[in-house]
Amino acid sequence: MMENMMEKIVSLAKRRGFIFPGSEIYGGLANSWDYGPLGVELKNNVKKLWWERFVHRRDDILGIDSSIIMNPKVWEASGHLKEFKDKLAECKNCKKRFKASDTRNDTCPACGHKSGFNMEVKDFNLMFQTHLGPVLDKKALVYLRPETAQAMFVDFKAILDSASVKIPFGIAQVGKAFRNEITPGNFIFRTREFEQMEIEYFIREKEWQKYFDYWQEEILKWIESVGINKKRVHLVEVKERERAHYSKRSVDFEYEFPFGQAELYGLAYRGDFDLKNHEKYSGTSLKYRDPDTGEEFLPHVIEPTWGVDRSVLAILLDSYEEESKGKEKRTVLRLLPQLAPYKAAVFPLLANKDKLIKLARKVYEDLRGNFFVAWDDRGNIGKRYFAQDEIGTPFCLTVDFESLENDEVTVRDRDSMGQERIKIEKLESFLHDKVYSKGR
Amino acid sequence: MMENMMEKIVSLAKRRGFIFPGSEIYGGLANSWDYGPLGVELKNNVKKLWWERFVHRRDDILGIDSSIIMNPKVWEASGHLKEFKDKLAECKNCKKRFKASDTRNDTCPACGHKSGFNMEVKDFNLMFQTHLGPVLDKKALVYLRPETAQAMFVDFKAILDSASVKIPFGIAQVGKAFRNEITPGNFIFRTREFEQMEIEYFIREKEWQKYFDYWQEEILKWIESVGINKKRVHLVEVKERERAHYSKRSVDFEYEFPFGQAELYGLAYRGDFDLKNHEKYSGTSLKYRDPDTGEEFLPHVIEPTWGVDRSVLAILLDSYEEESKGKEKRTVLRLLPQLAPYKAAVFPLLANKDKLIKLARKVYEDLRGNFFVAWDDRGNIGKRYFAQDEIGTPFCLTVDFESLENDEVTVRDRDSMGQERIKIEKLESFLHDKVYSKGR
Repeated sequence: MMENMMEKIVSLAKRRGFIFPGSEIYGGLANSWDYGPLGVELKNNVKKLWWERFVHRRDDILGIDSSIIMNPKVWEASGHLKEFKDKLAECKNCKKRFKASDTRNDTCPACGHKSGFNMEVKDFNLMFQTHLGPVLDKKALVYLRPETAQAMFVDFKAILDSASVKIPFGIAQVGKAFRNEITPGNFIFRTREFEQMEIEYFIREKEWQKYFDYWQEEILKWIESVGINKKRVHLVEVKERERAHYSKRSVDFEYEFPFGQAELYGLAYRGDFDLKNHEKYSGTSLKYRDPDTGEEFLPHVIEPTWGVDRSVLAILLDSYEEESKGKEKRTVLRLLPQLAPYKAAVFPLLANKDKLIKLARKVYEDLRGNFFVAWDDRGNIGKRYFAQDEIGTPFCLTVDFESLENDEVTVRDRDSMGQERIKIEKLESFLHDKVYSKGR
Repeated sequence: MMENMMEKIVSLAKRRGFIFPGSEIYGGLANSWDYGPLGVELKNNVKKLWWERFVHRRDDILGIDSSIIMNPKVWEASGHLKEFKDKLAECKNCKKRFKASDTRNDTCPACGHKSGFNMEVKDFNLMFQTHLGPVLDKKALVYLRPETAQAMFVDFKAILDSASVKIPFGIAQVGKAFRNEITPGNFIFRTREFEQMEIEYFIREKEWQKYFDYWQEEILKWIESVGINKKRVHLVEVKERERAHYSKRSVDFEYEFPFGQAELYGLAYRGDFDLKNHEKYSGTSLKYRDPDTGEEFLPHVIEPTWGVDRSVLAILLDSYEEESKGKEKRTVLRLLPQLAPYKAAVFPLLANKDKLIKLARKVYEDLRGNFFVAWDDRGNIGKRYFAQDEIGTPFCLTVDFESLENDEVTVRDRDSMGQERIKIEKLESFLHDKVYSKGR
């Protein structure tokens, strides 16, 4: 990767309205980020592609959208109240607190003193706490979910009761999760508020290896389908002592981020840990009954997890390119057309010719019924191309004087920079083929 | 409306997997609700339709997706820390606390004693509190946003700096908001965690009347476009003393819910209250500079707000119908095809004939590339029709023995219950016309 890639991406993201620092006019807030007009489109396109691929185009996966604040017993049963903790270290000099693993020598990152750290302070649970209702006492204590996964177990019975499902089947969810990280950082890589796409895939215990392998392949196929460079992705078997408390086997899909190789996606075999515990804590049977044999059992679970924000980051990194041809330089985001915020941009060749404007507006308005399309009539065509290249718009359509005669526009391709003339009436099917034919 | 409409809707929603009580196996959690496999589709379709209508198909509105947890100074500036409060009443006998307006006589709703209430307890802020980082002290106190609106003001400068916008223009957001309501209730009508669709529309002060009227019409058009019965919607001018602290004029769009007439959507003229305060509290200029005249000023704001969950509830209520024809009874959700979870259901006439199954699967798989489609091979055709009617599937496609000869399937219409034969190769364009032609 190029040098300073993170700086380049962060700067482009801010300058062009993909991603801004959260609460920026107030000096920000501890590495929180807001998605701007182009970023929200890119992120929504990632989520849409995922939902179409794993929910709409499959028979065996159902979607849900659950509450972020759940009954606190959920986190007792899941083990998060007990296990989801970081060790804190307190500087003996300034009393500031850090994640213990971040203080590997005696020097305090805050005051610089070498007085060492007090490790006796109690563990710090990563779940955000809040209170339901007006009384701030222990009885009202609830948590912001640290993962979307638990809802799939808690709603398991409601889904068995309302839908016709047969093992193997999955429950999918896309939504926000919150972790009170002591040291968030690296742009949208680690934030306290983030979005996940998760599937809990319910299977028979004896088949866990088979479905673990299957989902490993499915994650790899997804990676290729969204334009993340597979060569930068490394499968890392998570060692037993490093695995989450619920996991019997885990593989991390690590990506070579500019700041180091780090987790992009994850795959875990959770056994029947969650259903068993929810059954125990709730006193409700969560057994699945085989409709053919009548056999009743607790399914085991394979869990593939995708970070939405990390997907966006990896996609931005792998699509960013700087090109120079002689004197000309351009920055181009080679986003898959399905993921690009705008599918096309429409330009009148000149901004002061009514006839050009009128026809260009018509092209623009007609396309907009089916595609999200940009309009630009500022500066010259070359500048407009470069402005669209930088935000990943796959096609630029220019209406010129010839267009008034023959109803053709110049279609310029972002990647090849090649141009062709296309009839206005064919633009919609042209875009449809280019934007939706690949990756489906 | 029919009697017991709420009971009917709640029961259907649970039975067919639209909406479940949140954390149900743990006895629920204070009126929280989870969207099940069909509900998440309906809700996503509402949000998609809104985003297409107000962001993708317009030049003048840009989307964002901001953090739920913002810098706490945001809520100082917005006035929420000071103003967003309910009065609490404490029963003198049992010491339980209630929203003051819910205790209109001396009898305690909890213990039944007539000892009266202590009103001296301090006001209760409706924002959920939590703490960033490991220390639970005042300095780390942050809030879950009680509305999506503030991010549009806080990110106003970042958007001016990154996008080419000209007044009038709007910023739109869809996302979760949280209010620590003392008395949530009425199914998904009032929940502590809910989803909003909001636009902050920036204008010149002198044009506020014009744009207030414009957005009033736009909300009414939306109401018609999603199939909410306009006759059940009443525009209520909010009196000055009842208006939110920021509002110079407000109109509530109240809907005749079975439990009473109550707010569905809202429209407020916020003046320059928000930008002015954020400028003051942040010390950052939020002035807009007119590109033609060079004039600098703080824009005024018209804010139309839509509740996502309330939209879903009103749509369910207005699409629900029970019909009887002689002995036959059916329940039908007359959802707009764009909003229906499944656009069609595919049936093999019989489940034990391989040739029928094979052809039906082909029809199903082919359609699934573009539409979310259901498959059903259980019971007889009549039962399958009724099962699909109840969840609003607009078309049922049956593959029968004739289909094997002439490549036609029986297409049965949910609303008219009429049937026609359509060539398999024409199904995709048939569905496309029916599902996407209206409402666009």
